[in-house]
Amino acid sequence: MIHIDINCDLGESFGAYTLGNDEAIMPFITSANIACGFHAGDAGIMQSTIALCKQYNVAVGAHPGFPDIQGFGRRNMVYTPSEIYQMVLYQVGALFAFVKAAGTTLHHVKPHGALYNMAAKDKTMAKAIAQAVKDFDSTLYLYGLAGSLLIEEAQQIQLRTCSEIFADRTYLPDGSLTPRNQPGAMIHDAGKAVEQVLQFITQKQVLAETVCIHGDGEKAVAFAQALQANFQQHHISMQAPV
Amino acid sequence: MIHIDINCDLGESFGAYTLGNDEAIMPFITSANIACGFHAGDAGIMQSTIALCKQYNVAVGAHPGFPDIQGFGRRNMVYTPSEIYQMVLYQVGALFAFVKAAGTTLHHVKPHGALYNMAAKDKTMAKAIAQAVKDFDSTLYLYGLAGSLLIEEAQQIQLRTCSEIFADRTYLPDGSLTPRNQPGAMIHDAGKAVEQVLQFITQKQVLAETVCIHGDGEKAVAFAQALQANFQQHHISMQAPV
Amino acid sequence: MIHIDINCDLGESFGAYTLGNDEAIMPFITSANIACGFHAGDAGIMQSTIALCKQYNVAVGAHPGFPDIQGFGRRNMVYTPSEIYQMVLYQVGALFAFVKAAGTTLHHVKPHGALYNMAAKDKTMAKAIAQAVKDFDSTLYLYGLAGSLLIEEAQQIQLRTCSEIFADRTYLPDGSLTPRNQPGAMIHDAGKAVEQVLQFITQKQVLAETVCIHGDGEKAVAFAQALQANFQQHHISMQAPV
Amino acid sequence: MIHIDINCDLGESFGAYTLGNDEAIMPFITSANIACGFHAGDAGIMQSTIALCKQYNVAVGAHPGFPDIQGFGRRNMVYTPSEIYQMVLYQVGALFAFVKAAGTTLHHVKPHGALYNMAAKDKTMAKAIAQAVKDFDSTLYLYGLAGSLLIEEAQQIQLRTCSEIFADRTYLPDGSLTPRNQPGAMIHDAGKAVEQVLQFITQKQVLAETVCIHGDGEKAVAFAQALQANFQQHHISMQAPV
Repeated sequence: MIHIDINCDLGESFGAYTLGNDEAIMPFITSANIACGFHAGDAGIMQSTIALCKQYNVAVGAHPGFPDIQGFGRRNMVYTPSEIYQMVLYQVGALFAFVKAAGTTLHHVKPHGALYNMAAKDKTMAKAIAQAVKDFDSTLYLYGLAGSLLIEEAQQIQLRTCSEIFADRTYLPDGSLTPRNQPGAMIHDAGKAVEQVLQFITQKQVLAETVCIHGDGEKAVAFAQALQANFQQHHISMQAPV
Repeated sequence: MIHIDINCDLGESFGAYTLGNDEAIMPFITSANIACGFHAGDAGIMQSTIALCKQYNVAVGAHPGFPDIQGFGRRNMVYTPSEIYQMVLYQVGALFAFVKAAGTTLHHVKPHGALYNMAAKDKTMAKAIAQAVKDFDSTLYLYGLAGSLLIEEAQQIQLRTCSEIFADRTYLPDGSLTPRNQPGAMIHDAGKAVEQVLQFITQKQVLAETVCIHGDGEKAVAFAQALQANFQQHHISMQAPV
Repeated sequence: MIHIDINCDLGESFGAYTLGNDEAIMPFITSANIACGFHAGDAGIMQSTIALCKQYNVAVGAHPGFPDIQGFGRRNMVYTPSEIYQMVLYQVGALFAFVKAAGTTLHHVKPHGALYNMAAKDKTMAKAIAQAVKDFDSTLYLYGLAGSLLIEEAQQIQLRTCSEIFADRTYLPDGSLTPRNQPGAMIHDAGKAVEQVLQFITQKQVLAETVCIHGDGEKAVAFAQALQANFQQHHISMQAPV
Repeated sequence: MIHIDINCDLGESFGAYTLGNDEAIMPFITSANIACGFHAGDAGIMQSTIALCKQYNVAVGAHPGFPDIQGFGRRNMVYTPSEIYQMVLYQVGALFAFVKAAGTTLHHVKPHGALYNMAAKDKTMAKAIAQAVKDFDSTLYLYGLAGSLLIEEAQQIQLRTCSEIFADRTYLPDGSLTPRNQPGAMIHDAGKAVEQVLQFITQKQVLAETVCIHGDGEKAVAFAQALQANFQQHHISMQAPV
């Protein structure tokens, strides 16, 4: 039987600003990537999102991003490898504190937005991120784009990885995600989203270990439900990597 | 023999801005309170300051403050107890990540500036800070103003405490520090600083377990040297609480 | 005939975060208070909100607040009078730049949240705010709570003022607003909102020159429509002060 | 007689952090570029720096940068042209408010750091910056790297420009500045700095209308004195463009 993880970026609200519908999507996912206050989220939202994960038995991951709430961490910024290492370590530690205080465990780290996309193609950034995760806790999983340098560099240093495919994003021929500011970047039809995911899983051109659903998408819950239904039909079981 | 800890607020530089002379004071102190990026410091400075502590065998503490770099965390701000709890937990976790990656241990937490002063007199804030420290790691010491509510509330929940006196600040009759914006708040004479410290230690009106020296003070190194010399004469040994 | 202004706090979205329904409320208001990036808003939202005001012929005001987006400027913070002066001047200038580039004019300044409430009762803060507005442009109106020290201090320096009452907030016996964290602070019923406004206007215990509607309230449009309908019945004409 | 302007980046302190020695360099410069709070500076420092300029009769310019105090605005960041336009407009307006309140006038705008360097080579960014300056006040000068696209685009829209050369930085063969993180980027010898400036002025390969001295450089005052002495010998008069 094939096992697959369904992950979602959560805890992306900020102060008085609400984004996503975190609780509604909880029953459909197996792991959560929680914003750490640099691109979204704040200490209060981190705490309450971890409580939700505990309640719904969802694996908790840190979701570090560039320090740019106004740009939601989606803006490319140029940092040295040391700064990337430090930025990831800081955010993972901050989230870990809430995980520890809640009496639960940290399961993985998944970079956000521009940090994720840049690291997919930049060996030095990829290495810095992977090293930060390993130096904090060598048993954590690092989530990254399937087939990317982030996955490759993490494996080079014996970090456990989880290769990610996207249900609601289209891909460019080189395997990278179509940038959000280009037409057709997003998939709005649940049927197409499910089809793309099943193709990835069955064709095995790249390893597909986790499927990302965006919690801030309008149709996040609908996509998640459609995936769950189709996985059951195809005897694919949903669970976070262990 | 009397044991006493000498602590100093360190890692208070920020990006291109340098504050204090951290390395120069290292030989004279036994514990360091490292800014966590909210009122001062950044991820790079946190990392390098922890490396210094390791090199000089100085106990590492987290020094959480209000999120106000422009005001250096010295400006009173009104937060709910939950927000105080979350703010402390976040910063302690962030610093812990660098401590862990450096292969050393976190020894204590000391709130900074307005957070420290407000918590000295506000039972609810004091309780929130102490609970955050305990929920993260119940073996940490909480440093607070000798005789303050912060010490009292920490002891109420069985957290280990370290009562702090100041070498370079004057006191008001109620035992609180003279606010920095009032005349005579700072002691500029090393002799007077030493005299005040020895009085605290010998008169025992309040418990004096750690002496604070400010790393950003012009005479920080001179004060530290004078204290060290006098402690030797009075058979007081310098060490962080164990 | 009685003239009254209907003002609304607008432009309070931030980056990817949307707050309020600015365009929907435009037809029902005569002046707008636009967030200046300190407690909400950003440069892009400032520009687009001014464009909306121009389109709907709504008077443009600057809405400076404390530098605290996470707290939406509703958290009390302690600043010196000089810092208050500088904080207001900075934000008014920033908004003015967009007003000028759009070829329109700046009409007024209304402090936001904690800055507004603290200045209502603090003579020194009130004076600092009024002086900043006057030093930037002595023809601007300063909006403040009816009967407050902010109005009083502005009048002391011959600044034009506009006394504000609230449609959707309840009042304490001393004339200040019931703090938002207390029960019953908000009025949720359009009928009651209208009734309170008409009482203020007709009983004249305090001067009521402008009525505030909160754009982030769920019922902002409904309240605005109800007010407009009742004003027509009572021969009260809606217009910004000239 | 040749006229030349000597400009210096000033007001780059931040809260408790001091950078540069602004007052010491004042007697040697004819125009100042004042940080606007995005990459350095804050509202209080903007106000006091403008007061210094007024006292020393130095022309006041706005010095907008990327919103990145931790990186001092020297880190490349990717913004859309609209965002660049808005970012410049916001900062110019903020500085203008202090200029206006001080009863003086705004003379020019000079982008800072990465914004300056990127715009020198990026036509779209250059255009966005120039348009923001023009839309705010079409009589302002835009300072930019001599021979750069920033100067070219500003001239395309009939904005007055001032071509800048650097006393304390070395150049790459393409006319751009050697990046600060490369060896030999900075000139530390006053004699060489003067020589480079005189070459630019006399050889006229590019137009040299203003010479930049960095206020945060250790030898800023020494360089300024050396330039002043040599200019007198060569009958070059120092003044801001009028």
